[in-house]
Amino acid sequence: MNGRYQDKIYLALVHYPVKNKNGQTITSAVTNLDLHDIARAAKTYGVGAFYVVTPLEDQKELVEKIVSHWTEGFGRIYNPKRFEALSLIRIKDSLPQVIEEITQLHGMPVKVVATCAADTPQATGYDEFRQMLDQNDGCYLIVLGTAWGLTGEFLESADLVLKPVKGQAEYNHLSVRSAASIILDRIMGKDR
Amino acid sequence: MNGRYQDKIYLALVHYPVKNKNGQTITSAVTNLDLHDIARAAKTYGVGAFYVVTPLEDQKELVEKIVSHWTEGFGRIYNPKRFEALSLIRIKDSLPQVIEEITQLHGMPVKVVATCAADTPQATGYDEFRQMLDQNDGCYLIVLGTAWGLTGEFLESADLVLKPVKGQAEYNHLSVRSAASIILDRIMGKDR
Repeated sequence: MNGRYQDKIYLALVHYPVKNKNGQTITSAVTNLDLHDIARAAKTYGVGAFYVVTPLEDQKELVEKIVSHWTEGFGRIYNPKRFEALSLIRIKDSLPQVIEEITQLHGMPVKVVATCAADTPQATGYDEFRQMLDQNDGCYLIVLGTAWGLTGEFLESADLVLKPVKGQAEYNHLSVRSAASIILDRIMGKDR
Repeated sequence: MNGRYQDKIYLALVHYPVKNKNGQTITSAVTNLDLHDIARAAKTYGVGAFYVVTPLEDQKELVEKIVSHWTEGFGRIYNPKRFEALSLIRIKDSLPQVIEEITQLHGMPVKVVATCAADTPQATGYDEFRQMLDQNDGCYLIVLGTAWGLTGEFLESADLVLKPVKGQAEYNHLSVRSAASIILDRIMGKDR
């Protein structure tokens, strides 16, 4: 049975450090629909919190504005389901801040689980990851990169890297919104 | 093994007939990111074609404009991966036109598979659907509704309705982009 992991899975969407098309480390811009789609998926699968990570003040203000539109006043009344989803969003400057918050909440270090569209050595498959969740009391932070993905340096520093999401086709250029949704379904989907 | 179904699965995103928030039948507007995200997922999982269905001339022109931006000229050179995905898009006025095209292509009637976020009587689970694909030579058109989803009338007319995508949480208000991605992964994902 999946789904029993729902109180130990957290999600982070990272805008720095990520790669651009040429592999250089950049800070990407926040995309409105990333927040909506991933918050709705996070709520569907019972994720503990959805962290949006950006060090840029104007981008943090943008996220706050989007979230407050749907969690206060007219937006909250017009679409309470959107309010429920966007209430999961927490804005942080950096991943170390996210890790600190979850670690304090649970009283034990959170394991950092990176995601990547490319094959990486020693990547963990989904069967193996679900087994780890079964056998382990800890909590896990699944980290998604925007733009052209998380940096190689970050992947190396993570506790584990999940295998890329693939079909049988060679092409694997999913949007981060699609990847987030599929990854949560693979971990916590009901009757898959 | 999943994935061997890839030459017999088609996808349609329907903008009419769909429901609005109050359950009335409407024509919804085309959303740019629906085209991009769902085309990229369709390409990842090896779908035969991704049909965008709208009877409105201005909306068909909008879809053509978006697709041609990425499949011709600068867009094609700048991001050939996006070209590969958006090349899967076919624009049609109505679902009967889609069904006719696929039926002519395969020389046998395509089975219409509706999707719905709510529970419906006699809905087909994913295990059962994959078994049907294994035991059957036919091809299948998976139909996704925009706005508040496909009409009850359409669901009743479909050959089958897939069970709603759910986590263990009660909430199930995924975006159509997320739902499409998850549904394709459940049917054709590798090493899920």
